[in-house]
Amino acid sequence: MKYPKPIQNLIDKLSRLPSVGPKTAERYVFYLLNRDRKELNELAQAINELKEKTVVCRTCFQIAESNPCPICSDNKRDQRQICIVADTKALAVIEATGHYNGYYQVLGGELDPVKGVKPERLNIKPLLERLKKSGANEVILALNPTIEGETTSMYLSKLLKDQFKGKLRITRIARGLPMGADLEYADEITIGNALKYRNEL
Amino acid sequence: MKYPKPIQNLIDKLSRLPSVGPKTAERYVFYLLNRDRKELNELAQAINELKEKTVVCRTCFQIAESNPCPICSDNKRDQRQICIVADTKALAVIEATGHYNGYYQVLGGELDPVKGVKPERLNIKPLLERLKKSGANEVILALNPTIEGETTSMYLSKLLKDQFKGKLRITRIARGLPMGADLEYADEITIGNALKYRNEL
Repeated sequence: MKYPKPIQNLIDKLSRLPSVGPKTAERYVFYLLNRDRKELNELAQAINELKEKTVVCRTCFQIAESNPCPICSDNKRDQRQICIVADTKALAVIEATGHYNGYYQVLGGELDPVKGVKPERLNIKPLLERLKKSGANEVILALNPTIEGETTSMYLSKLLKDQFKGKLRITRIARGLPMGADLEYADEITIGNALKYRNEL
Repeated sequence: MKYPKPIQNLIDKLSRLPSVGPKTAERYVFYLLNRDRKELNELAQAINELKEKTVVCRTCFQIAESNPCPICSDNKRDQRQICIVADTKALAVIEATGHYNGYYQVLGGELDPVKGVKPERLNIKPLLERLKKSGANEVILALNPTIEGETTSMYLSKLLKDQFKGKLRITRIARGLPMGADLEYADEITIGNALKYRNEL
């Protein structure tokens, strides 16, 4: 297909978005061509401001509008808990539940030997320093229930147990059946976990 | 979910793209957060330039970099044929085949009584004027094989036959089985068309 340069240029750029191919990018561009110029300028501005108006909080490493972020600078939260998450998205998901009132630490990823993500690449050193100084007595591991998440949880659990012998409670968010799931279609590992971590009623 | 304003703002804006919901927009935004600022600025610029650097060709009404567009200003093309398409995208699709060397006319849509698209909304008047002045003796209707496309083709065919009695050949791109199709799974209308418009071998 031979489109005018400004059209082809934007198709190429949008094709780089995750799971967007040239056909989808084409749809986006022709949709945008039908919007007025003001709306396009606003979208362009929002893209420019995405990084210009956000910073990484130097305490918990989440992406926020200020450093320290609103959570880290809120001293009414529970100082005793630090929840470890892979990224800002996971933090927002947990925060949205309204069930957690402690602080967070964003690792910036999960260990992945295949992709070469080693402990040095994650914000583990700042976590250790923070734990030494803070009054936290519990670390909640809230990583993904995947190979990478499990590997990271195991690694951190061992490291923290070694460094803070008995002074720190290390927990992990529960494994089990999600709400609305059908036992018949749940996988064996999930059902296995649901049995293993069964609760008293 | 409560994200920092610059993140939420871009999620909201990207959610307006066709078949993009908040979850997909969120993925796009977190992908963009991991790109460097230069790449973001280039994307923003490409969006700004989409309409700033394109114009509507006042002859064929396609979106192009110049007016008249490269096709309309190319006098080596076949003056006798004008191909009617719904939009710039359809024009690009036909142009990409390399099988057509005439000129085009972009209608800017197809007739749709449900959505209220009436003949006045389409570039039909400029088409009639162009046909009166030009040396074209064939109009090729290349609209979509849908209710709207068929309606538009029928409407134009009647209008052009009335106005240019016998002086203009009016054709429509062929209906039949697409390459790679399976007779077993083709719909009845397609098979019906394939029979009706069968060719001599």
